[in-house]
Amino acid sequence: MDFLGDLYRTHTCGELRADHVGREVILLGWVHRVRDMGAVIFLDIRDRYGVTQVVTEAEPLLGQAKRLKTEMVVAVFGQVAPRSPETVNDKLDTGHVEVRIGELRVLNDARRPPFGIADESFVAEDTRLRYRYLDLRRQRMQKNLILRHKLTMAIRRYFDERGFLEIETPILTKSTPEGARDYLVPSRVHPGEFFALPQSPQIFKQILMIGGLDRYFQIVKCFRDEDLRADRQPEFTQVDVEIAFASQQLVFSMIEPLIAAIFEVAGIQITTPFRTMPYSEAMARYGSDKPDLRVGMEIQDLGAVFAETPFGPVREALASGGVLRGLVVPGGAKISRAEVDKIVAEAIEMGAGGLLWARQTEKGLATSAKAMGEEALTRALEVSGAGNDGLLLMTAGTEAQVSKLLGALRLSLAKRFNLVDPSRYEFLWVVDFPLFDWDADDKRWVAMHHPFTSPSDADLARMTEAPGEVTAKAYDLVLNGSEIGGGSIRIHDPEIQRQLFRLLGISDEEAKLRFGFFIDALEFGTPPHGGIALGLDRIAALLAGEPSIRDVIAFPKTAAAVDLMSDAPSAVDPRQMKELHLKPLA
Amino acid sequence: MDFLGDLYRTHTCGELRADHVGREVILLGWVHRVRDMGAVIFLDIRDRYGVTQVVTEAEPLLGQAKRLKTEMVVAVFGQVAPRSPETVNDKLDTGHVEVRIGELRVLNDARRPPFGIADESFVAEDTRLRYRYLDLRRQRMQKNLILRHKLTMAIRRYFDERGFLEIETPILTKSTPEGARDYLVPSRVHPGEFFALPQSPQIFKQILMIGGLDRYFQIVKCFRDEDLRADRQPEFTQVDVEIAFASQQLVFSMIEPLIAAIFEVAGIQITTPFRTMPYSEAMARYGSDKPDLRVGMEIQDLGAVFAETPFGPVREALASGGVLRGLVVPGGAKISRAEVDKIVAEAIEMGAGGLLWARQTEKGLATSAKAMGEEALTRALEVSGAGNDGLLLMTAGTEAQVSKLLGALRLSLAKRFNLVDPSRYEFLWVVDFPLFDWDADDKRWVAMHHPFTSPSDADLARMTEAPGEVTAKAYDLVLNGSEIGGGSIRIHDPEIQRQLFRLLGISDEEAKLRFGFFIDALEFGTPPHGGIALGLDRIAALLAGEPSIRDVIAFPKTAAAVDLMSDAPSAVDPRQMKELHLKPLA
Repeated sequence: MDFLGDLYRTHTCGELRADHVGREVILLGWVHRVRDMGAVIFLDIRDRYGVTQVVTEAEPLLGQAKRLKTEMVVAVFGQVAPRSPETVNDKLDTGHVEVRIGELRVLNDARRPPFGIADESFVAEDTRLRYRYLDLRRQRMQKNLILRHKLTMAIRRYFDERGFLEIETPILTKSTPEGARDYLVPSRVHPGEFFALPQSPQIFKQILMIGGLDRYFQIVKCFRDEDLRADRQPEFTQVDVEIAFASQQLVFSMIEPLIAAIFEVAGIQITTPFRTMPYSEAMARYGSDKPDLRVGMEIQDLGAVFAETPFGPVREALASGGVLRGLVVPGGAKISRAEVDKIVAEAIEMGAGGLLWARQTEKGLATSAKAMGEEALTRALEVSGAGNDGLLLMTAGTEAQVSKLLGALRLSLAKRFNLVDPSRYEFLWVVDFPLFDWDADDKRWVAMHHPFTSPSDADLARMTEAPGEVTAKAYDLVLNGSEIGGGSIRIHDPEIQRQLFRLLGISDEEAKLRFGFFIDALEFGTPPHGGIALGLDRIAALLAGEPSIRDVIAFPKTAAAVDLMSDAPSAVDPRQMKELHLKPLA
Repeated sequence: MDFLGDLYRTHTCGELRADHVGREVILLGWVHRVRDMGAVIFLDIRDRYGVTQVVTEAEPLLGQAKRLKTEMVVAVFGQVAPRSPETVNDKLDTGHVEVRIGELRVLNDARRPPFGIADESFVAEDTRLRYRYLDLRRQRMQKNLILRHKLTMAIRRYFDERGFLEIETPILTKSTPEGARDYLVPSRVHPGEFFALPQSPQIFKQILMIGGLDRYFQIVKCFRDEDLRADRQPEFTQVDVEIAFASQQLVFSMIEPLIAAIFEVAGIQITTPFRTMPYSEAMARYGSDKPDLRVGMEIQDLGAVFAETPFGPVREALASGGVLRGLVVPGGAKISRAEVDKIVAEAIEMGAGGLLWARQTEKGLATSAKAMGEEALTRALEVSGAGNDGLLLMTAGTEAQVSKLLGALRLSLAKRFNLVDPSRYEFLWVVDFPLFDWDADDKRWVAMHHPFTSPSDADLARMTEAPGEVTAKAYDLVLNGSEIGGGSIRIHDPEIQRQLFRLLGISDEEAKLRFGFFIDALEFGTPPHGGIALGLDRIAALLAGEPSIRDVIAFPKTAAAVDLMSDAPSAVDPRQMKELHLKPLA
């Protein structure tokens, strides 16, 4: 094995073009492919920047080259030559040239990798994560990490140009349980005490506004010790923003051009400003607080059409304050009866008491609910816009049940019938969220966003009497049915903050213990302020076209919160635990 | 108290100039100063961008303005007017204008702060940290955080332009005890197991090089659970860099222009390339591995001059392989005898067996060591360059003792006689560090940098036979006597890595358990690579002219690793500990 010494590459493996013909070059990289033709050998040499073909037919180089294996690290000295016309590769940036090897040095050996780097074939994710250093060599991960770097550069440039300061907030913070579970860090110096890793820098960024820093942002790691359903990570990265003297509209006007700048990096032009929709409207029309606007099939209230229905279950639902709502599958008049039955079965599985359907066929009205009357059903098909082409699906129950079911069914139908245009980017600000959510288990109000969110000015007076009806100055940014960000205008009046804690069932004493310094801070001249946090991992995955955020994170953890490469977490020396004044529970 | 509503500022408090005279403006900010002249009142309104004087003499505004207290948050509507010539303030950017108040709204009340924001007077650090949100309003902290933001922007721009990718490495990592103590994070999902917060992303950045990412950087939080002597923080920020196919010279050539770009931000021009000096030379000439080159007073070996000395202690030291070395205080021939005695006393306090001195006076040679002979002493004064002006100080002992003492004495003398020019920036690469340090307590070799540092090519063969003599491809970047960065060329040969672990007394089995995945990774085609980490906090403090890194960190911890503002760490709910399968030790 040769040492590098003062050897430098003259060019990367993605750099050589026809203009370089005749130049003496040095390439450093990995053996990507070997094509041994007997009397001549072609090697592809790879680095992050591309692949260059090198070639020799002369001994002793030929013999030396034949001993190379893929993924060995080599230095190639040679002269750039044009490829013969039949070997030119137009798909490759370097495809018009090759390097005739003058000298070959092996800088490091390589064991046979458990999967191919060059072929980009499917590899089980566990294997990719265990050998992440090899997975990172593949084009897919390199592309994703380069994109992510470019995104963060664009984000920082955007904020810098607008007078925002990036300020680092601590990772070792105080545990203030509320919302998700904290990761804790035992203190060695203070026995029995713990730091917590931040779920977000919420309090610190508000403190920065109180401190007069005016405009803050940070691309920052946050932590949640939750059971990882779906596509979550124990540590994730957010673009955290806070603005003094901010109205909701000011926050929107700062974030929309940022999103445009971010999408620009991926070559996507988007239109601003974004639409806004109150939470209640989103729930009614789409059965979701993060509606995918690429999909039509809006939910429609059909209660009026069936006000007099003789059909018992629907009549009872309506009579007891419930709703009858439905949606139309476009072209659904033509699908097979078996397909219709599958949809009904799926709805039942999703928790529906029943799913009624109706459509026009060549033989006239077809329905699963004859008892609702042909006249009313025909009217419903007209009113809903199903007409002769659509399939009308309906369900009755409480408003919450019906919204939830039809919202989920809508997305499932869109997928089933391929009704989503993946080239569209539909942004939406969902606004006017309820301030509180009723926790039926604990029988108490909980904050829908977080306990620092301001009630709307109009509802302030009735916060105590009718908490359930109070809307908040909270907003989510939704893209194609995914929440990519959320924020609010914060409470800047210490008295309102105290009131809110009381409504959340946090006693003054407890509030003082957990948030005392923050309520104190509010009393020393706090400017009105608000902000937002965007999910960087999610945004990067969307732009990379990756279904999972794990593919835009260099070293992600599994759903069991394990790093398969380094095998973390792991047991530690008992001495380390002792220093932390801890012992195992059992 | 008024609400903000859709109110926006038209200008910041640092923006208005003579051109704005006549304009109707809205300012939002804090009441900085109140000057109540009876029939007229002047208020200074402050935000991050500056201070603007606003004025009224008309009721009801006058009465309203008189009720304001400093640090209240206000909105001022009014017209820009020129100041009368006698009230123009040339020191203030906005000092030529004032705003005649048309309307005044109080956006938030303020309690009397425990220290003045406007006066910038001295406040005890504990008080500043407890009320950090008020301390952050003062100009000093605002200036420091703005500078820090600009530094990180410049660093990112520099690396981005040179093809480096910023890649996030995990915060929840594996504990691999070596070097400082890890902060641990108990796993809830895996009882008895722990994550560790990274002391540096060392292994991950090497993995990124193995993964072919070629050039990596990251501005990243690192963690050390150490007793915080001096100016350390439990979490600190480093500029982390790694380069594939790197020689030491390549790393230097990437970092020197970066440092120039960083200093440029603070308006300081520096010269590159930097000097380099082997560790052994730095120790011999300056008694330090981080010499402050703004100070002269080099250490000189005077053993040859006194080879035949009749003076017992020196003769014995030299005979037993020790050294006699000294340094010259320029102009020291003129200082009082009392001052000389103080220097001797200080040296004794620093641990010197004795400190000999000699100088020429009007009455001839004066010395504390007559026994060493007038002739030899006179020669020593000549050889050392003390001549008739300098004071020669000497001590004898083992090389290590003498270096350490004279190194410390040199810095102390520089301070005492004001021999440091604070406007100079003296950079130095200290190179050729020993690979190992002998741990006399544990009686074993420890890695001087870290166990992934490559031995020098020349010493590779004798790594096993003479570990103490092996130099490493390690380097520190020193500025004015502070280490601001350090790095190395890494081991890329798995066999050498295994050998090194063995020399450190880490068995193959133990190495496999702790670093197995990494040694594995080295076998799959690892390019030669190397890098560096720079201390961002220290660099920011140097450029801000702050003696402590706490003044360039928004929310630092005390020497007892406590956040005085939020009171972290703190006790947690016993339920939280139980979920982590832990209980207190006693």
